[in-house]
Amino acid sequence: MSMPIPEGRLSKDRMEALADGIFAFAMTLLVLSIDLPTNVPSEAASANRVLLQHFISLLPTFFIYILAFFTLGGFWYSHQRQFHFIKHIDGRLLWNNILGLMFATLVPFTMNLAGDYGEFQMGVIPLELNILMMSLLFYAQWSYAVSKSELLHQEIDPLVLHKSKRRQILVIGTSLAAIGISFFSPSWSTVPYVLVPLIFRSKGRLVV
Amino acid sequence: MSMPIPEGRLSKDRMEALADGIFAFAMTLLVLSIDLPTNVPSEAASANRVLLQHFISLLPTFFIYILAFFTLGGFWYSHQRQFHFIKHIDGRLLWNNILGLMFATLVPFTMNLAGDYGEFQMGVIPLELNILMMSLLFYAQWSYAVSKSELLHQEIDPLVLHKSKRRQILVIGTSLAAIGISFFSPSWSTVPYVLVPLIFRSKGRLVV
Amino acid sequence: MSMPIPEGRLSKDRMEALADGIFAFAMTLLVLSIDLPTNVPSEAASANRVLLQHFISLLPTFFIYILAFFTLGGFWYSHQRQFHFIKHIDGRLLWNNILGLMFATLVPFTMNLAGDYGEFQMGVIPLELNILMMSLLFYAQWSYAVSKSELLHQEIDPLVLHKSKRRQILVIGTSLAAIGISFFSPSWSTVPYVLVPLIFRSKGRLVV
Amino acid sequence: MSMPIPEGRLSKDRMEALADGIFAFAMTLLVLSIDLPTNVPSEAASANRVLLQHFISLLPTFFIYILAFFTLGGFWYSHQRQFHFIKHIDGRLLWNNILGLMFATLVPFTMNLAGDYGEFQMGVIPLELNILMMSLLFYAQWSYAVSKSELLHQEIDPLVLHKSKRRQILVIGTSLAAIGISFFSPSWSTVPYVLVPLIFRSKGRLVV
Repeated sequence: MSMPIPEGRLSKDRMEALADGIFAFAMTLLVLSIDLPTNVPSEAASANRVLLQHFISLLPTFFIYILAFFTLGGFWYSHQRQFHFIKHIDGRLLWNNILGLMFATLVPFTMNLAGDYGEFQMGVIPLELNILMMSLLFYAQWSYAVSKSELLHQEIDPLVLHKSKRRQILVIGTSLAAIGISFFSPSWSTVPYVLVPLIFRSKGRLVV
Repeated sequence: MSMPIPEGRLSKDRMEALADGIFAFAMTLLVLSIDLPTNVPSEAASANRVLLQHFISLLPTFFIYILAFFTLGGFWYSHQRQFHFIKHIDGRLLWNNILGLMFATLVPFTMNLAGDYGEFQMGVIPLELNILMMSLLFYAQWSYAVSKSELLHQEIDPLVLHKSKRRQILVIGTSLAAIGISFFSPSWSTVPYVLVPLIFRSKGRLVV
Repeated sequence: MSMPIPEGRLSKDRMEALADGIFAFAMTLLVLSIDLPTNVPSEAASANRVLLQHFISLLPTFFIYILAFFTLGGFWYSHQRQFHFIKHIDGRLLWNNILGLMFATLVPFTMNLAGDYGEFQMGVIPLELNILMMSLLFYAQWSYAVSKSELLHQEIDPLVLHKSKRRQILVIGTSLAAIGISFFSPSWSTVPYVLVPLIFRSKGRLVV
Repeated sequence: MSMPIPEGRLSKDRMEALADGIFAFAMTLLVLSIDLPTNVPSEAASANRVLLQHFISLLPTFFIYILAFFTLGGFWYSHQRQFHFIKHIDGRLLWNNILGLMFATLVPFTMNLAGDYGEFQMGVIPLELNILMMSLLFYAQWSYAVSKSELLHQEIDPLVLHKSKRRQILVIGTSLAAIGISFFSPSWSTVPYVLVPLIFRSKGRLVV
């Protein structure tokens, strides 16, 4: 860190630290959207029944919770893989990154909406748009980085590049499909996201 | 970080950073579940009495707070010890880890439940299941890692391995015991966790 | 880290870690100020209408959200650039830094105020004063650091220094302009901040 | 990190990462205890008056906020200085540390109490006891570490050791004085903390 950075290039270490912090915090903050029970009676048998009913009523929230947690986990993983190849960042990459992180911090809000109003289109569209924006920004970031070889450690194997882009397009397509389905059935529109890991898995080893 | 990672292997540094972040936030977020007093009178003597009564009524919450804080601390420590031996992670280890971290982020919710409704079985079972899931996932992660020598820095001393597994099984057994006791006395069912550090201590030096 | 630090000098690594953590959490915590809808009817068409109206009513909040997120992002970036040149910190730099971070943690509060009461002067002035204080403290920190060559890796290129100070003065001036405008039109007073990145961009490559 | 750690010794890197995360988060979380105004009228002149009155009523809260922020900052700084000399940690140091961090996470709660009920003894005593516990635990940690030369990078200069202990005792004494004063005047009992930096400053250069 003690050498002069060439004009317009920045060290990537603290960008990674900020991203890790924001992802870790956004993933932890999701828990605040799980409602605690209220009006629990003081007699044990009824209290247990009320609590159990409360947990059952939370099932759609838990589904969205898991979805949001793994979506953020997936984007974090994508960030890690991209920055594995990136050596320096420049101003455009930095602000693209910060904009992407802004959408990551919105997930606790849009997830909360989808947990509470998942049966209405306007309850799920914000989450789906949120994920769509993240995918587009991560795609833009990666496309820009690979186009500037001075920002990279080395040339990237064309096969890795091809696979990584195909995956990113799959995630973008999934959000577009989810938004499309939301016009017919909001409740089912989040299901396509569940398929993403299955498709990734069937396509073999890990890439960016 | 500048060398190509072999296909299907990932650097562990950022996995550690994400885990440290999530554990730190989950441990800090527990504090939000300690209720502030309400309806405090404005006259000093009565205000002091009301505040004192409030603190006394919080004693079960503080007990659960300490329990949850040290449970998370213990799993963080276990994470640190496991990753001391781990050199690379692959996809399965990564997602196993993220799933384990998801259960860590649920602790502020399940701890809050147990603090408010610790006298009912349905109030303590979520916390006990939560800890059980974390133990099983950490056990699975460790078993998988030690079975793949290419992910490790070196072969692990069989004695260390034996001790570490014995300890993990003890934690799993403790949660099962807690769940069992909750059928008879919810309030007493969290006590077995208090015994874990005592048993660990009596068994000598620190291992994974 | 194993060598004795000269009396009155400190390692900068953990100062960076604390700053990255505080910026990451403050940026993520902003999301809690976006209100969830209430009183959503259970019939789909009306629910969608109510939700949509809620999102429209949130537009000023989103504007302030983006503003606050990028303002914190900008100060984080400034921190990173300053600490690129800084090798050691002394007590004065440490406490100047911690005071600056304190104002960073206040942004979720002042942003929330501005989101809710942005049409009143007393709703926007706290945010504008908050940003002003951060700019002044970052300016003081940088002026102090560059005056103590033993704290730096190397002499700083006078041109870099000139540009960095000019930019910092621009940010201070923007807050002063915002506060001035708030006397005439609170709602318009936050607009000058939007111009900052445009001016920075027009002035060419990245500097501190 | 790739060498076997001697039985009973642990790497200190992740302990530092956890501590930095917890301090950063606790310091950021303090902001949630600053209440937003309610019942703000819609007419500009009255709204500004109500908001201004709200800010004035928050002055004691801001005082406690600054106090809590700098107290946590000071303990973070103490942690950093101690770990500058520490090379390895053992089980006792680890759990001592985690217990100290637990009291750090309680500060947002005890600070909130003191902000709301600072005029009553039972409103300020929890914060003062909280700081007392942290000082005692940091003192115990430091005493233990310096007694085990195998945990340190090197022998510590007796003068540094003498100064560091004197300072720690000063902080312990301040909390005891605060608790004593709270029996006569709760509102004034937090003032001794303000004197700590002044005394430290007058005693010269930075030590542990």
